[in-house]
Amino acid sequence: MHPEIVRPTMLLDETRVRANIERMAAKARANRVRFRPHFKTHQSAQIGEWFRAAGVSAITTSSVQMAAYFAGHGWDDITVAFPANVREIGEINRLAAAVRLNLLVESLAAAQLLESQLAHPVGAWIEVDAGSGRSGVPWNGGGDLHALAAFLAGSSKLRLQGLLTHAGNTYAARGRDAVAAVHDETITRLQRLRNWLMEHGFLGLELSFGDTPACSMLDNWGDVDEARPGNFVFYDLTQMAIGSCIAADVGFVVACPVVAVHPERREIVLYGGAVHLSKDVLLQAGGLPSYGAVVPLHAGGWGDPLPGVWLRSLSQEHGVVAATAESWPPLAGVQVGDLLGVLPVHSCLTADLLKEYVTLGGEHISMLRLPTGGG
Amino acid sequence: MHPEIVRPTMLLDETRVRANIERMAAKARANRVRFRPHFKTHQSAQIGEWFRAAGVSAITTSSVQMAAYFAGHGWDDITVAFPANVREIGEINRLAAAVRLNLLVESLAAAQLLESQLAHPVGAWIEVDAGSGRSGVPWNGGGDLHALAAFLAGSSKLRLQGLLTHAGNTYAARGRDAVAAVHDETITRLQRLRNWLMEHGFLGLELSFGDTPACSMLDNWGDVDEARPGNFVFYDLTQMAIGSCIAADVGFVVACPVVAVHPERREIVLYGGAVHLSKDVLLQAGGLPSYGAVVPLHAGGWGDPLPGVWLRSLSQEHGVVAATAESWPPLAGVQVGDLLGVLPVHSCLTADLLKEYVTLGGEHISMLRLPTGGG
Repeated sequence: MHPEIVRPTMLLDETRVRANIERMAAKARANRVRFRPHFKTHQSAQIGEWFRAAGVSAITTSSVQMAAYFAGHGWDDITVAFPANVREIGEINRLAAAVRLNLLVESLAAAQLLESQLAHPVGAWIEVDAGSGRSGVPWNGGGDLHALAAFLAGSSKLRLQGLLTHAGNTYAARGRDAVAAVHDETITRLQRLRNWLMEHGFLGLELSFGDTPACSMLDNWGDVDEARPGNFVFYDLTQMAIGSCIAADVGFVVACPVVAVHPERREIVLYGGAVHLSKDVLLQAGGLPSYGAVVPLHAGGWGDPLPGVWLRSLSQEHGVVAATAESWPPLAGVQVGDLLGVLPVHSCLTADLLKEYVTLGGEHISMLRLPTGGG
Repeated sequence: MHPEIVRPTMLLDETRVRANIERMAAKARANRVRFRPHFKTHQSAQIGEWFRAAGVSAITTSSVQMAAYFAGHGWDDITVAFPANVREIGEINRLAAAVRLNLLVESLAAAQLLESQLAHPVGAWIEVDAGSGRSGVPWNGGGDLHALAAFLAGSSKLRLQGLLTHAGNTYAARGRDAVAAVHDETITRLQRLRNWLMEHGFLGLELSFGDTPACSMLDNWGDVDEARPGNFVFYDLTQMAIGSCIAADVGFVVACPVVAVHPERREIVLYGGAVHLSKDVLLQAGGLPSYGAVVPLHAGGWGDPLPGVWLRSLSQEHGVVAATAESWPPLAGVQVGDLLGVLPVHSCLTADLLKEYVTLGGEHISMLRLPTGGG
């Protein structure tokens, strides 16, 4: 099967991916919320068109380079959901001349640097850390929220849009109730900050959120204006563990050649390592780390993950599949030269590494390939 | 400083890297061992020339594609140190027509598949798992070593070279004595297998090893014929933790723009995430995970890692630097728009992600960029 696959290759199920997109777009419509999906997961102009077919016209990216790529493919309303990197002011100015660009600011210092160097107006979202502890003005005070809001309100180049957060802490939750609790807390904290700013005369502020767990598991997203989920386009093993999706929703697996079989220790070595899958890891029940689940490939796609079978370690190019004694039998017939599918722990990072999708129909779908890192 | 650096960028100290190469080449000469360095760490034709200047003429790669890249840059004696992937037979045959190619086999099944499809003779090393538990014929029996050796001895296309191992288990060792113990055990096991094969009439077998910890920390490598270390060209935080090198040996750091400063929680957010550094992680003393150490950059290079300062988490593009209370003062003056250096946990994976080096003199050095993953 798949003789054309000779190296680790992302096999993409277009039907599932389009269904994931349509389902989330419909949910956003039902919530009367602007759907601004995060394109950092797929990073593909062609998959972007599947979003356009679902009515999407505004997008999110995680870098200025990614925004430039999608601007070059006809997207003209882009939020770079990352604290503005003032060193990229040249590229920011080129982009802002061409599209409606929104940036994230979380400090007066960054806002002042941008103001002094921006050549064109941009939208500005105040990033709020609503409890995830990564970036943003702390929800519970500290930082310079009032000074920042006042500066933005008086700026002609940075047009204040509202408050934006990424509730990365839903990723530590397991199950709908736990995710709902984090989401409610997140939105309540954003609303409280917005109310406080309103009392200080800052009016018309929108709220933007967008983690895949909350967007997937909750029907009612609450009083928000914009949603920016990204991972849901493919989902992955982490989202399955959280409860955001089931295996039948996952949009791609990595087809990996089998290069060694060790029945004596119930292990199989794959051509498929850290440079293909990423070293993101998921702790399984029982505490054993997993670098991916294993699925059988068949002519029309792939099956559900084999229970009791997991990728136990990754080197640069090797992946070692382990199985419990009860779980070995379905693998007993696997031979050198066969292919096994790996359902990734974190689809965003795996896609970023492999740089190309192949659909079940054999179509090759390209992605952003970054130019040089320097200057 | 470095206004030309606007995104995460590998800053490479050519003097250190050339010194690392020369030191290891000299050690191989002193041991009268063939030096066949692993080029998977740097993946750069230009850095390959620095090895050539140190007298190197035979190399190791971790993939067939990487071998083809270096073959295209004048290397004509290449071992692909990965269990032969029979699905790549087309590319293997093209390579074997052009260069002296060596492959790893660890099973009769793989050897038979190769024999039936090879168009040109290649060298064949029997890979031995001498205790690391990844790939290879188990050192302690099991597998089909005798049948494999007999098959190779009778093959006209697969020319048996000897026994090869990668002692990945030295990476769990800490300090010279612990590394020496693993190395001695590894070499003893290889020798025992070679003796056993000699008793069965398989003569003239060489031994090949090559982990960076043993090659760096031990002056006497023992009774071996070939050494294939790779990581030593750059070293990294993991090698520092093992004891293979000191900070002043590390060949590159990643210059990362500062995008947010949070003195209230003693944290700094960098533009520098999992897609730049990889999610490889090192457990620090005390059990806290680190995704990198932090170094100050200066005009001539960079300083030693700041004690008590570490990269505590990585998202796709964000890196969060944390510091203990005593360690914050040197960071107190850091501002949005500054650069900080990150000394990587695992330089091979970081280099593979960033795809380009910039020397302290401002020269850009390119690397292998793979074509499409599929077909």
